[in-house]
Amino acid sequence: MTGIVEHLLDVTSEGRRVPTVLFTPVGADGPSRLVLVGHGGGGHKRAPTVMKMAEGLAAEHGIATLAIDGPVNGDRTANDETAAQLRRDDRQAYRRRYYMEKYDEMVADWRAALDVALARSDILGGPVGYWGLSMGTRFGVPLVAAEPRIRVAVLGLFGYREGVDTNQRVYDDIGKVDVPVLFLQQLEDDEVSPGAYHELFKRIGTRDRRLHANPGRHAEVPRSELIASRLFLARKLGATSDD
Amino acid sequence: MTGIVEHLLDVTSEGRRVPTVLFTPVGADGPSRLVLVGHGGGGHKRAPTVMKMAEGLAAEHGIATLAIDGPVNGDRTANDETAAQLRRDDRQAYRRRYYMEKYDEMVADWRAALDVALARSDILGGPVGYWGLSMGTRFGVPLVAAEPRIRVAVLGLFGYREGVDTNQRVYDDIGKVDVPVLFLQQLEDDEVSPGAYHELFKRIGTRDRRLHANPGRHAEVPRSELIASRLFLARKLGATSDD
Repeated sequence: MTGIVEHLLDVTSEGRRVPTVLFTPVGADGPSRLVLVGHGGGGHKRAPTVMKMAEGLAAEHGIATLAIDGPVNGDRTANDETAAQLRRDDRQAYRRRYYMEKYDEMVADWRAALDVALARSDILGGPVGYWGLSMGTRFGVPLVAAEPRIRVAVLGLFGYREGVDTNQRVYDDIGKVDVPVLFLQQLEDDEVSPGAYHELFKRIGTRDRRLHANPGRHAEVPRSELIASRLFLARKLGATSDD
Repeated sequence: MTGIVEHLLDVTSEGRRVPTVLFTPVGADGPSRLVLVGHGGGGHKRAPTVMKMAEGLAAEHGIATLAIDGPVNGDRTANDETAAQLRRDDRQAYRRRYYMEKYDEMVADWRAALDVALARSDILGGPVGYWGLSMGTRFGVPLVAAEPRIRVAVLGLFGYREGVDTNQRVYDDIGKVDVPVLFLQQLEDDEVSPGAYHELFKRIGTRDRRLHANPGRHAEVPRSELIASRLFLARKLGATSDD
């Protein structure tokens, strides 16, 4: 963890405490640009991939990283009755009601965390970027669609098939995403079919979208794509001179 | 052109003189790894994209670049009766006969150039990489399929549709390509349809293939993909520690 400093932020949203952490580059000589990193399913705000993104963004581009637990992960798990119920009961109807509820809560929680981060003197006032795969895309797409301060996003490991109504919100909202998007696909994904990837990618609401498809299963995104992600975010946030 | 030294190589293949240039990094402290760069249609061995690849490979990774004119480009144009005839007559039947002939000639010419380059003391004995888009993929695929010293390739801006028999050789040979491949696609390509891209990509004869699809028309490959190409080649040739 050389190179980053961790700050626990005090964030509340609609009465909920939002477990939030900000990682800033060591030795920054002024306010840093910011990227929001959403963890995947089973992860939390200090999951290994979140840390790799934070360390790389800081070391290579001087960019800070904001991460929250959610919606039923990390410091939120223990006291969350919904989470406990989800673990007991994973019927489709319940999951649907659950996701419908959590989409809006996660948007509100992320926006509250972003407000607190952008009020700090060590963070630039915006624009900011978003990075999140799999569950980080499920809850990231409604956020990117709703939040005008987010001007670039890396998404992926997610798809859409008609009739899977837990994903309908993602499908609807990705049509409203009009910022540059890098979308990551795994060619032998054991959770998302090629057709479902295609349906969601083509629905992105901007022409400035690009797809990186790599060999391997859902959880086997190559490390080179973390580098590509950081370069893409840095370029679009103006932190590097590459086009 | 800071950072590279140009060497004109004396190469003949089946009685043909092969206009060949080798670019080596300035100040290399030992023999360099090598990448073969095939130019696109209308280009030549010192086309701008070839030079950008050569300069970047040298500066970022200490890798040398080998380029040839071909088949009817650069220093080969003037005295090539086939080229003159092609310019006069672009009927499909003629083009077909023309490509059929040139595929094998280009493989032979590249291999002759590679023999000369690898015999030099400033070039490592192999393995080597290949980079070529559009026409560089048309003539690169048969080469990569035939040449065991090539162990990684960047290809793209090319597709396959049943019945387009000038491209049949590319379709057949890409099934024999069993080295890691990065394949580049343009999402609004005005020369290659999405379906034709898909047919060719899925035919690649290795599981270690990845696709980068970018916004823009055929000739609008973003500069960031040249960087991604160089990183991919350098990683697979062992010139960097990234995976």
